[in-house]
This record gives sequence, C-alpha cells and structure tokens, in this order.
Amino acid sequence: MKFALTILGVNAATPAFGRFPTSQILQVHNQYFLLDCGEGTQMRMGDFNVPKHKIREIFISHLHGDHVFGLPGLLFSYDLNGRQEPLRIYSPKGLKEMILAQLRPGVELSFPLHFYEVETTFPRIIFENDVVTVEAIPLKHRIPTMGYIFRERPKLLNIRPEKIQEYQLSVPQIKAAKKGEDILLENDVFVENHVLTFPPLPPRSYAYLTDTIYNETILPFICRVSMLYHDTTFCEEHKDNAALTMHSTARQAAELARKAEVGQLITGHYSSRYKDLEVFLEEARPIFPNTVLGLEGITYEP
Amino acid sequence: MKFALTILGVNAATPAFGRFPTSQILQVHNQYFLLDCGEGTQMRMGDFNVPKHKIREIFISHLHGDHVFGLPGLLFSYDLNGRQEPLRIYSPKGLKEMILAQLRPGVELSFPLHFYEVETTFPRIIFENDVVTVEAIPLKHRIPTMGYIFRERPKLLNIRPEKIQEYQLSVPQIKAAKKGEDILLENDVFVENHVLTFPPLPPRSYAYLTDTIYNETILPFICRVSMLYHDTTFCEEHKDNAALTMHSTARQAAELARKAEVGQLITGHYSSRYKDLEVFLEEARPIFPNTVLGLEGITYEP
Repeated sequence: MKFALTILGVNAATPAFGRFPTSQILQVHNQYFLLDCGEGTQMRMGDFNVPKHKIREIFISHLHGDHVFGLPGLLFSYDLNGRQEPLRIYSPKGLKEMILAQLRPGVELSFPLHFYEVETTFPRIIFENDVVTVEAIPLKHRIPTMGYIFRERPKLLNIRPEKIQEYQLSVPQIKAAKKGEDILLENDVFVENHVLTFPPLPPRSYAYLTDTIYNETILPFICRVSMLYHDTTFCEEHKDNAALTMHSTARQAAELARKAEVGQLITGHYSSRYKDLEVFLEEARPIFPNTVLGLEGITYEP
Repeated sequence: MKFALTILGVNAATPAFGRFPTSQILQVHNQYFLLDCGEGTQMRMGDFNVPKHKIREIFISHLHGDHVFGLPGLLFSYDLNGRQEPLRIYSPKGLKEMILAQLRPGVELSFPLHFYEVETTFPRIIFENDVVTVEAIPLKHRIPTMGYIFRERPKLLNIRPEKIQEYQLSVPQIKAAKKGEDILLENDVFVENHVLTFPPLPPRSYAYLTDTIYNETILPFICRVSMLYHDTTFCEEHKDNAALTMHSTARQAAELARKAEVGQLITGHYSSRYKDLEVFLEEARPIFPNTVLGLEGITYEP
C-alpha cells in the first residue's frame, strides 16, 4: 500500500531555473490528494504521469498566487475532458470568489465543484475517509495559512497464519482477533490476543508546512510524523529576508525536524535567488541528518 | 532590424504532449509584444530566453482560459521583481474583472497596469508607435474574439551615398530626400528624388488569427501580409469538430493563406488529440506550399 509524495513544483513566489511554483501530489493507497496548485500544475502532472483524474480533494495552504494560479487551468481541463466526479477544494476563505471570477458566467462545469472554507484560527481535523485523516493547523505567514497533516488510518492486527490451524479459528474469530479481541474457543479455552496476532506496520504520516516562519508551537502536531515538508525559502545567509517575508531557513526547518523527531525532512519552496540547491542540504544535514532535497518529479516515501 | 515571432505555447484548450496553451512574442525592432497569455507563459519565457521585462503591451484575442490563465502569474512575478514600467493590456471586455479578482485587495502592484477594452464589432487601429501599427479585426468564434495585425511602419527612402558627394548635399537636403522630396540645389539645378534615393525594404507584417472559423470576410485585412498565424485546431478528418467548436482545419487555413497571398502560413492551436503534427503540414502544403509548422521555442521571420 503506497504512501508517497511526488513534488510537482518546488519554487517560491516566481518560477526560476526550470522550477515551478508550489504543488504536490500525495498518494495514500489508491487515493491521490493535491496540495496547492501553482501555475503550471497541470503541465507538471503531464510531465510526471500523475493520474490527474483520480484526484478528488485539493488542499490549499493559502491564497498567494504561487499556490493557487494553476487552479483555473486545471478545472478548465477537467471540464473539457468531461470529468464527472465531484471535486472538493479546502482552503482559507476567499478562494471561491477568486476561482469563480475565472469561469465564464452561465457556463456550468461538467462536474460538481465544492469549496470548503478552512477555519484558520485553530487546528482541527477537516477530512477523513477509510484510508486517511487530514488535520489543518494554522501556520504563521503574512496572510492566513494552513499546514496539513495526513495520517494513514491504523491498520488491523495481522493474524499469525499457523495459529488459525492450531486453534481451528473460524472466520468471525479471525476478524475479531484482527481487531484486537481475545478469543474464547469452543472448548472454553481462553486465548489472549497477542498469542494470535502480531502488530501491523505503524501508520505513516505526512506534514505539509509551507509557507511559514519557524514556529515551535506546532511541535505537538508534527511530533514523529514520518515525513515533513517544511518551508526552506532561504538559507541562513538570508535569514533577514526570511524574517521579513515570513518564511524559514533550511537551518530553522532542520531544528524543527529534530525537535519533532520526524522521520525525514524534505526541503522546498526555494527562493528564485538560488540556482544551486545543495546549500540547503549542507545547512540542514548537520542539524537533522535525514534531510533530503525537495525536487520536482521525485517521489518520496517514508 | 528584427521582425520575428517566437511561439511560446501552441496547443489548444488543454496542454498535451509537452505543448502549452497559447502565447507568442512578436519582436519588432527592439520592442516586444505579447500575444495571448495561456497558463505557463512565464515559464515558457524562461525556457526560451524571452526578455520579459521589455514587454510593454499585451494583446489578448479572447477570454477563453487557454489564452489568459497565465496573466495573474506573470503580473505577480513582475510585481515581485519590482517592475516599474507601465504595462498595457488590450482585450475584449471582461478581462479586467477576471484579473483584479486574482490580486489581493489593498495590495498595489509595483507598476501601473492599464486595461484597454477592444471594440469587438468592427475593425480599427488600436495601437501605434514609432515602429508599428496594430489593427484589431473581429474573428468568428464562440465568444467575442479579435485578430491582431502588426504592420511595420514604412521606412524612409535610402539615400545613394555617391550622390551626396556628387551634388554636395547638405544634411537638411539629405533628410528631405529621404522623405521623398525633390531637391533644388544652390545652383538652381532641380534633381528629382528618384535620382538620389532607392526604396527601402518593404514593411513587414504579421496577422495573428486565432481562435476562428474559416472566414473570407477578413481577406482584405490580411492581403499579402508577410506572415499569417491561423487557427488550425483540427485536420479535415475532424472538420465537423472544427465547425462545432468554431475552429478551423489546416486545409481551411491554407485556403485563406492562398487567397490572401500571404508570404508564409504558420499553423497552430492544435487540438490535444494530435500527438504527431506532420499531418497539418501534409494537409496544408498542397494548397499553400509556404506553410510551416508552428512549434514552441521556434522563431519565425518573414
């Protein structure tokens, strides 16, 4: 079962050096979630063979253009291709008006389009289905901005195959054991659950935090997530720019990753002043060794 | 003195096979004009080294998304880069409202942005400066749509260098001769202009006609233009689709080019159903031999 992040656009504000503005695809099992939608997102989906018609939910961090200007084109293409499945877009307030101003009055899309306004002053779970839950947490940026945390739902316990034979377990008994129940056999023998099962792989999780300043108040929410993508618009050399524009440095992101004990840190949202990105790794890795460079077209798994 | 068209995006409605939606740059001498601005135009400018800060005027054919969705991102990048020069956008009615809905309220751009609403019911000259005039002519599409014709201003006559010496021409006399005047020398000898000068190269011209059905009523406007870019969304095989969606076939564009006796026909605005584009050439060239395939990143000169 896949849990994989593919970066489509990794640049900040304006495109540069072939890098596009922000967007990402998170695949959880057979479901695809789009995170932000900068200009050119639909072209990047084509470049990297993303099955764009499988996307049902889009999560928008904030309404700066480099995170949303790809939406009208994507919706327009869905419509031209005769999409029928509903599409749900989660974002801070104001997106609906921006998007509807792009669609011609009186022209109906081929599919139902729903906008959900995400409350930006406190954290809450905004979406859940059979494979994943999504929490939205407020970040600190120049305008209301949300981070999104995807948590794979806990899986059932695994049954030990040899025990099915040994205890002559029935199908209902197997199902009960997988849910963690102890089993009373027909001969009145009581079998504790741990004898019959072993634990599943731990659920995987992904925190998407951009754009934001360094902010320790979010540590409880991202504690031990498997993967963290964090705003690293600048390096320490341009720390003042980071403060001024309310972004983070690679060093700050690494500090946060270390304190949150995450599995892996992925850098990104690079300023167009950087052509060579190795400097981000050189800065982050001494603080948090399991840092990887966020790059377009690369797929990351925990 | 350059007169050169660079295609940035050549696909219809939706991107496909690495082809972007419509945009083009026309360079006339040292001036750059942007024609339409589909999603990803600013990335294409980067890919093909277009000096984007030299663009002062943008001409929009119509308000379908594949011709305008790149505008917000381009304006946003200009602003981030601290552009100061005014930018003028010419288009049918309604663009201003679409664009302003994308810019955050209360946030002023770093440069003056002017929208000019082009009258879509009759042809007229909408722009002129020292190097070029631009005529807007109504096309026939599903919504109000304009074609734009760029005509290089006629150049002055060339003076024959050996005649300056022979007749001891003064600077005012040379200037007058270049404008076509006859010259009365100090010794009262009268010299007809054609003795002193020879004609300049004929002015070059470019007609940008997309999106449109086949329409002979525009023939007088495009008669003998040096280059014609014409909607060739489909081949004859899909003639019915062309009629239905109010586009043209390669054969129709070639017929029009032949009747207008243009210098060169450039095909474009290809439907995403075509991966291989050679079919457009195969269809057009038997009717109008000087047809070339419109391709992104290629520069065309008369």
